[in-house]
Amino acid sequence: MNPMTADNLRSAYGGESQAHMRYKAWGTKAKEEGFENVARLFNAISYAEEVHATNHFKALKDEKGDFSVNSGAVFGLGSTSENLQGAIDGENFEVEQMYPAYLKVAEMQNEKSAIRSMKFAIEAEKTHSRLFSKAKEAVDQGKDIKIGDVHVCEICGYTVEGELPEKCPICGVKEDKFKTFNK
Amino acid sequence: MNPMTADNLRSAYGGESQAHMRYKAWGTKAKEEGFENVARLFNAISYAEEVHATNHFKALKDEKGDFSVNSGAVFGLGSTSENLQGAIDGENFEVEQMYPAYLKVAEMQNEKSAIRSMKFAIEAEKTHSRLFSKAKEAVDQGKDIKIGDVHVCEICGYTVEGELPEKCPICGVKEDKFKTFNK
Ligand SMILES: [Fe+2]
Ligand SMILES: [Fe+2]
Ligand SMILES: [Fe+2]
Ligand SMILES: [Fe+2]
Ligand SMILES: [Fe+2]
Ligand SMILES: [Fe+2]
Repeated sequence: MNPMTADNLRSAYGGESQAHMRYKAWGTKAKEEGFENVARLFNAISYAEEVHATNHFKALKDEKGDFSVNSGAVFGLGSTSENLQGAIDGENFEVEQMYPAYLKVAEMQNEKSAIRSMKFAIEAEKTHSRLFSKAKEAVDQGKDIKIGDVHVCEICGYTVEGELPEKCPICGVKEDKFKTFNK
Repeated sequence: MNPMTADNLRSAYGGESQAHMRYKAWGTKAKEEGFENVARLFNAISYAEEVHATNHFKALKDEKGDFSVNSGAVFGLGSTSENLQGAIDGENFEVEQMYPAYLKVAEMQNEKSAIRSMKFAIEAEKTHSRLFSKAKEAVDQGKDIKIGDVHVCEICGYTVEGELPEKCPICGVKEDKFKTFNK
């Protein structure tokens, strides 16, 4: 793999791994504050970030060894409203800045496995940003978010609440490839 | 918190988050190769790294905002023998280089919460390094590792196989604070 794309994938892997972890911590906090559905949403999206991290790691399977990895990450364990703002900011950074830049380079270098795992991620992050924004609106009114079951595609990390889709709109797999986080 | 210790904690958080994630991927690979106990060990230690990452994240709770985080990480998805070597190298780097250096700085700056979460991690990593070394010896003879239940302390990440200890030798909590990964 071209070193620049490999570097970008490692950076994205580091970012996804850290997002996976902070959403778990923020989910615990939401539960403590009594926002059960927000907690469930954090857990579901934490799993989606695991899908992204794992896809990037697999795309890097032959790039073996120790590396110094530089990643953007959001910190702070505040109120659930603050944590949701951090989540929205992190998702939007990935959608607007990080993945578009990395994808341009990967496309220029024709790195197919990197393009695939990054495209899955950027499309899924858009669904995360929307869900977190909806959660923040509710929490800022002192309410829990009203959502049904949350379904996460195990292949691309697409996340949706309510009915289980017949087919993933991002990667095309069938409904049996979704992991459901129910009440 | 002093900026140098905060930076080191963020770096350690990034490293632990990435270790958590690669051990999951290496666990899946071990299972595919028929090493059920090695897979279970990877999953247990992946959970221990989650404990470390979460401890560091909580120690950083008031250091809010976006940061660029630089972390050491091991890459490559090879045979289970190769993956175990990567795991041993990563653990030893943390035991011999990373945490001793970060701890010296945290002690100089008298950063109590950082010292606590880093001391828990360095002691737990020693148990990880030993268990992975034992696993590699077995796998290099074509065998699965012979281990009983694997117990992980939810407070410090101490990891032990066989009998559940009455009390954690690192952090002192009682046996009900252990998570068990059984056959
Ligand atoms: Fe992601
Ligand atoms: Fe996301
Ligand atoms: Fe999908
Ligand atoms: Fe660790
Ligand atoms: Fe470890
Ligand atoms: Fe402990």
